[in-house]
Amino acid sequence: MADKTTPRILQGFCELLPQDQLLFDSLTDKINETYKKYGFFSIDTPVLEFSEVLLAKAGGETEKQIYRFNHYDNDLSMRFDLTVPLARYVAQHSQDLVFPFKRSQNSKVFRGERPQKGRFREFYQCDADVIGSESLDICYDAEMTSLIFDVMKTLDLGDFVIRINNRKILSGFFGYLGLSNKITEILRVIDKLEKMGLDKVKAELKEVGADDKQISDILDFVSISGSNSDKIKALKKIDAGELYSLGVEELDTVVTMAVQLGTDEKNLKIDLSIARGLDYYTGTVYETNLIGHENFGSVCSGGRYDNLTGYYSDKVMPGVGISIGTTRLFSLLKENDMLGSLTKKEKSAVVLPMDNDRYAYAAKVVSEVRKAGIRCDVFWSDKSGKAKFKYASRIEADFALAVGETEETNNTVTVKNLGTGEQEEVALEKVAEYLR
Amino acid sequence: MADKTTPRILQGFCELLPQDQLLFDSLTDKINETYKKYGFFSIDTPVLEFSEVLLAKAGGETEKQIYRFNHYDNDLSMRFDLTVPLARYVAQHSQDLVFPFKRSQNSKVFRGERPQKGRFREFYQCDADVIGSESLDICYDAEMTSLIFDVMKTLDLGDFVIRINNRKILSGFFGYLGLSNKITEILRVIDKLEKMGLDKVKAELKEVGADDKQISDILDFVSISGSNSDKIKALKKIDAGELYSLGVEELDTVVTMAVQLGTDEKNLKIDLSIARGLDYYTGTVYETNLIGHENFGSVCSGGRYDNLTGYYSDKVMPGVGISIGTTRLFSLLKENDMLGSLTKKEKSAVVLPMDNDRYAYAAKVVSEVRKAGIRCDVFWSDKSGKAKFKYASRIEADFALAVGETEETNNTVTVKNLGTGEQEEVALEKVAEYLR
Repeated sequence: MADKTTPRILQGFCELLPQDQLLFDSLTDKINETYKKYGFFSIDTPVLEFSEVLLAKAGGETEKQIYRFNHYDNDLSMRFDLTVPLARYVAQHSQDLVFPFKRSQNSKVFRGERPQKGRFREFYQCDADVIGSESLDICYDAEMTSLIFDVMKTLDLGDFVIRINNRKILSGFFGYLGLSNKITEILRVIDKLEKMGLDKVKAELKEVGADDKQISDILDFVSISGSNSDKIKALKKIDAGELYSLGVEELDTVVTMAVQLGTDEKNLKIDLSIARGLDYYTGTVYETNLIGHENFGSVCSGGRYDNLTGYYSDKVMPGVGISIGTTRLFSLLKENDMLGSLTKKEKSAVVLPMDNDRYAYAAKVVSEVRKAGIRCDVFWSDKSGKAKFKYASRIEADFALAVGETEETNNTVTVKNLGTGEQEEVALEKVAEYLR
Repeated sequence: MADKTTPRILQGFCELLPQDQLLFDSLTDKINETYKKYGFFSIDTPVLEFSEVLLAKAGGETEKQIYRFNHYDNDLSMRFDLTVPLARYVAQHSQDLVFPFKRSQNSKVFRGERPQKGRFREFYQCDADVIGSESLDICYDAEMTSLIFDVMKTLDLGDFVIRINNRKILSGFFGYLGLSNKITEILRVIDKLEKMGLDKVKAELKEVGADDKQISDILDFVSISGSNSDKIKALKKIDAGELYSLGVEELDTVVTMAVQLGTDEKNLKIDLSIARGLDYYTGTVYETNLIGHENFGSVCSGGRYDNLTGYYSDKVMPGVGISIGTTRLFSLLKENDMLGSLTKKEKSAVVLPMDNDRYAYAAKVVSEVRKAGIRCDVFWSDKSGKAKFKYASRIEADFALAVGETEETNNTVTVKNLGTGEQEEVALEKVAEYLR
């Protein structure tokens, strides 16, 4: 026989041990159930697409990160996000979709960058987007806010803040300052305010070409403070043209409506300094931080865009969406000993036949328990009783159901609660009920 | 702006429209819930692996079907099944796993063959395997039988038969006939009995090198008939050496025990002609057919193998597993108008604000309904009432919750059952309860 191959996986790709996988699945399930509750339809797109289609929009940095190759004369790429596939899906199937189209997708994406410690090259994203045909009511932006709130509540990872802003306010305001041709650069600099601090931002704004007066106006503006309604009031007092006013109006509506939809206002904060790095956000933008864990960065981000499908279709398709990087979030939670809140798993049991003559009775027991819908394993093995209980505790079962000669004669099961150590002989027909 | 790119996907890759995706998810969920009930742990492995690792065993036909490419000096391949990644996972993590290790995996696999009509190049498989360290009790083979039975019952696709055999019986018997050096070839020929018919099989057996007496013995043997216990009795009467007897013993145990575990014997049939094409099955083998839809081929197959991890580790790891090709199954069900049994989805509702002044009240309504865990959408739009109800019916909601001025004044909702057309004004605080 040939030499053995060392079993290993690529750096930046990840897989979990079974008990961690259960927790990761619980994280994902909670997010997806909340998306569902909000009426989103889950879709699933191919991992591989034609490069021409997938990279219609890409360029520069993005393109360098693509797993791209030729196969039977086709130039193929692995998806690097879920937004481009969504755009393609919506453009391709627009005749068969109902608009506004509320889609969610929980899938792996691939970034073929050079391996770097702590960077994932394969990771899950849970995205939710609402896509309108021609137009999309601003209320959907409020619904997304409320969706973030509900997801964070359901995940129960501690206190959090949803920071919200509107790019129209920023664009309008900077236009008013006479800096319209530098908006993107200024927004990029402002976006880094938290990371780099005031001085560096000032310096960078100067580099971009703002004069001292403009820099001072910009910084005054992004530091407007107080409650959400204080901020809206302050914003409404500034006269900075139509686009600006529309942005303020939208932000006001979204915040008001989000609260009506159930968002607790203490978790929602207007933050005029956030802009999101991406170029395509045009209205509402969101970031979400865990209080006390700001170093995690935003755990749920997104915003409103004017047109999703521009590269594939003439129809204008505005949308609003959010994204949660679940692989990254899980990894942060694990590193910070915060997986505790995810341990909501179903009760499970394992039947331990105490000797080989008990297999038929063990079969009867496990089949009863499973019939009741309870997760139940059997340890078919002639190992010692000690080894059997060890197996039960190592798979982290909640209950061991020991069956020996006595139990079979009595038509019972000895149920041991592996958490408390308590045990009790229970009639077979009562076991399922007892476990619940 | 550049010319538009035509939105399209690769042939053999598939994606579903939202309503079909719901049904596909229901198929997958039912299978995975049953796997879970049997104590399987779901795992998830990378889509991309080192070619050296993934192709340690492969060769010939398999290798040709791989999506394989170089990226930053790494020779990479996309997984083409879930068994090789399982072998790698078990060998890599054996120190951290509990044996027998019951793992399930529901993932996409990729077969880069030349595009052909009706062939999937990207498809989902739902696999469940139990892996032992050094040894694995035969009772696990019975559990897998019972698992297939439960999965098929849960899927509720009509009458079905699980066909079961044991490769040791075949190997032992052919050795006894003096054909031990041709077992693999003979098994391959026999495996085609159903597809090719008797005459072609005879001719092929002759080609393989069996003489007329041997061919006649072989065909007599594979046509042993009667009930399962008749067959076991007939098999026990034949004296064909140790391996053969062990096989008969195992088959007897597995069938008896599967029934004790809840398998209805009318759905389980010993079939001495099945062998499974793959080389690595060494004991129990399964195939499952839908009665009346034999042309679907086997919808759930698998078996026992002696050693999963031979290419990665010196430790012997026997296992038994099953696999369901869910993409293929779903596609067959759809083509044959059999998706009806999958339509078990949760109740859903959509709030229709009858005018723009009703948005705040609509927010209150939807938030109440969602709080009760019910899937609920809102149609935020100033379109006509007719358009609003059309939206509700096109997203296939079960209920439309109309809210106009009257409803807001009365603190009620007009609930229209979109299935029956009945409608009723319901107090807001009773709506959630009413929908359930």
